[in-house]
Amino acid sequence: MWKPDRQNKKPLYEQIADHIEQRISYGEFPPGSLLPSERKLAEQLGVNRSTVILAFAELRSMGIIESRSGSGTCVSNTKWGATPKHTPNWKRYAEGGSFLPNLPFLRRIREALNQNTSLIDFASGELSGDLAPLDEITKLMSEHPFPSYLGYVNPQGYVPLRQALVTYLDQYRGIRTTESSILITSGSQQSLYLITQCLLSPGDAVAIEDPSYSYSLPMFQSAGLRLFRLPVDREGVCPEEIRSLHKKHRIKMIFTNPNFQNPTGTLLSEQRRSQLLEIASELGLPIVEDDPYSLTDYEGIPRPPLKSIDPIGSIIYIGSFSKIAASGLRIGWMVAPHSIVERLADARQQMDFGLSVIPQQVAAQFLKSSYFEPHLERLRMQLLFKRDLLVEALNKELPDLIQFNIPQGGHHMWCKLISAVNDSKLLEEAIKQGVVFVPGSVYGSDSGFVRFTFARAKAEEIGPGIVRFAKALRELIR
Amino acid sequence: MWKPDRQNKKPLYEQIADHIEQRISYGEFPPGSLLPSERKLAEQLGVNRSTVILAFAELRSMGIIESRSGSGTCVSNTKWGATPKHTPNWKRYAEGGSFLPNLPFLRRIREALNQNTSLIDFASGELSGDLAPLDEITKLMSEHPFPSYLGYVNPQGYVPLRQALVTYLDQYRGIRTTESSILITSGSQQSLYLITQCLLSPGDAVAIEDPSYSYSLPMFQSAGLRLFRLPVDREGVCPEEIRSLHKKHRIKMIFTNPNFQNPTGTLLSEQRRSQLLEIASELGLPIVEDDPYSLTDYEGIPRPPLKSIDPIGSIIYIGSFSKIAASGLRIGWMVAPHSIVERLADARQQMDFGLSVIPQQVAAQFLKSSYFEPHLERLRMQLLFKRDLLVEALNKELPDLIQFNIPQGGHHMWCKLISAVNDSKLLEEAIKQGVVFVPGSVYGSDSGFVRFTFARAKAEEIGPGIVRFAKALRELIR
Repeated sequence: MWKPDRQNKKPLYEQIADHIEQRISYGEFPPGSLLPSERKLAEQLGVNRSTVILAFAELRSMGIIESRSGSGTCVSNTKWGATPKHTPNWKRYAEGGSFLPNLPFLRRIREALNQNTSLIDFASGELSGDLAPLDEITKLMSEHPFPSYLGYVNPQGYVPLRQALVTYLDQYRGIRTTESSILITSGSQQSLYLITQCLLSPGDAVAIEDPSYSYSLPMFQSAGLRLFRLPVDREGVCPEEIRSLHKKHRIKMIFTNPNFQNPTGTLLSEQRRSQLLEIASELGLPIVEDDPYSLTDYEGIPRPPLKSIDPIGSIIYIGSFSKIAASGLRIGWMVAPHSIVERLADARQQMDFGLSVIPQQVAAQFLKSSYFEPHLERLRMQLLFKRDLLVEALNKELPDLIQFNIPQGGHHMWCKLISAVNDSKLLEEAIKQGVVFVPGSVYGSDSGFVRFTFARAKAEEIGPGIVRFAKALRELIR
Repeated sequence: MWKPDRQNKKPLYEQIADHIEQRISYGEFPPGSLLPSERKLAEQLGVNRSTVILAFAELRSMGIIESRSGSGTCVSNTKWGATPKHTPNWKRYAEGGSFLPNLPFLRRIREALNQNTSLIDFASGELSGDLAPLDEITKLMSEHPFPSYLGYVNPQGYVPLRQALVTYLDQYRGIRTTESSILITSGSQQSLYLITQCLLSPGDAVAIEDPSYSYSLPMFQSAGLRLFRLPVDREGVCPEEIRSLHKKHRIKMIFTNPNFQNPTGTLLSEQRRSQLLEIASELGLPIVEDDPYSLTDYEGIPRPPLKSIDPIGSIIYIGSFSKIAASGLRIGWMVAPHSIVERLADARQQMDFGLSVIPQQVAAQFLKSSYFEPHLERLRMQLLFKRDLLVEALNKELPDLIQFNIPQGGHHMWCKLISAVNDSKLLEEAIKQGVVFVPGSVYGSDSGFVRFTFARAKAEEIGPGIVRFAKALRELIR
């Protein structure tokens, strides 16, 4: 990202004016289009807002931009010899389309993290850099010869990776399968996207845990699905509700995350597991089982997934490396009946022509290597350590204002705020204090909940992060 | 893929029966689901069809499968303690969904290529293994340290790659831009998918060259778009038609591939370029310019894209490494006004959470390396060599039956068959003879055209491939 040069003799505002003029002339901001706000530009360029105001004044005096009261600053139409008719109305295109944008809270969090790298991050659902097996992967990449062919790979994914997953799934997840039942995806996100786009039709009803990570994904709405809520308590989702939901709404599919659910961290009890399978089978309903966190079990005894007790193949199982190794690999997988795998592989070809072979090869080597098991052990210990730091900090800073259950695995802590607070105001105040989290309403719950991810922040940031959050919270309920 | 062991004392059909029973018990073929046909299984397992028939008979006698006349072989419901009500009706799910499957011709070609690796491939639009810069990439991967962070990258793509592309686009394509106008995608396919899903709504009309690669992509129909045809002649697309189309149908976007168009290989003439831009600007219509082939120009003087003469930013420009380096990298890019790039980056996050950082880093290093330019030179020479082999073979084998223009760049040769032949019969006969091509109707043209890709086959396969094709063609018109 370009920044003005403070050593340069030319005043900052002139440098900024020149830079904006250049970007306009490149077509980045076509005639008639809206420029970023003064506040946003000032944050991006690392200058005072007044400097941006001066730069805009300069551009305005040259006729390059126009300020319209109430609608921000636009690139001038006349200057560039264009009438509004001549330039596509890009704004309308950007706002059109049937695919919905991300939720405002999530876009705000991303924007804040992009602009201020010193924010403490309790929002991003991923591992901190030091927990990823970076050294191991670097070693594997330099030790192993590169595959001899760099073309499109099989639509279901690179065969050696699927073979390695057959062994992994048997050994670590108790799932017996063959490579022809496996589809490699770029992560759980793409698995869910393929399912919602290709196996369901607009108007179809689906049952989703409440709260659930799924509510943070506009893809369900983009696909025109009707979402029905299954309450989650301390034992996990309550399956009994499915029967009545199905009676009323003709449910087509059930989405669940039984082990260390995102965001609540709960573990579905044994009894509920059999109940869930029984009801689904009775109604002939497929279950989509998302299983990203099982191997983070802090006791080191990962609970088996529902898929391991699915004799009649009613489960589409989703796994990934993102939460147990590195999200930057972008490697996930699905295990499903063959007809489903074939259909989704065909659709994925149309969307992106499949994944790069390079990270697939790296993932296959990592799974088969002697690095994998020690990596998991270290990961579990570190996550447990970070969880304890978070619990300690919350007990110290907010004993009177927050309630939570302590999760036995996963990345997240789900907290109830005892006093009523406005989600949006709390998030803005927290950003001001230098910390981000995800408001619970993003996951479909009522306001008054907060999800803290303790995997992403560095261990030494967790205490100070909660101090900042506590300041923000006390500021608001004062 | 599992194959029966011919050294094993157990008869092949018993091994196959055991294998299928195992896959059924794993849930790959749930109760009630259809098994692959005897022909398909025989091809996959490399055995005679009679062996599969024996295996099926064995399984039928054990009550594991059932054959229903006219509807193939199914997994038994009763044997597995399931009534049809208990297992999800996966067939219905696989056939549902608003996202359409690939065209039958393309699925047939892929299936044939998967099952018979000795087929000569004039169908796949990619480079042969020896044309990819495999050694260069292997060297770069071992020389350069791995990035220090393996997390999710910026939604617009890895910053060093976007920076390298700013230089590349200026130097090789005459496009001046900044990294904030660039979105890294997993290839042109994903770029087009994002545009059709996010910037257009069901019912919108778009203008597409006829013939065009775009007609082979069901994503346009999946998005509910109405496609209108712009005729292509020897000088490329005829822009005048846009005006009347717009008047009648309110066109929302124009899709074009001006340099070495896929499939016709034509180069849009200078005059038509200005005309196209003029009309688009007059009507305020955005143009999507797909530019995968320019750098393959056999004379080594790549024609600039439309985007290089687009002062008011009405073009979304799409580029990729797939046709000039390696499709297996899965790296492409888009240059567009900032508001569009932001919108599409946000949507892509929802679909797959972005690309793996590993191939992005490799691509950035390759672009900046001293390997890039020599690679392009070698590529151009080799493609020219292969094109000449194809021309020679066609002139030798089919002088009386085929007409074509000789392309000056790109991967494809577009041929008109002089006698009327049924597309589907010709493809099946060609597969029988050991060669695949793409029937022209896949690209929206009338039947009687054929696209040969000469980039994918090895040089020594081109002559024999055309001999096989000629046999198939003569067989049919006899």
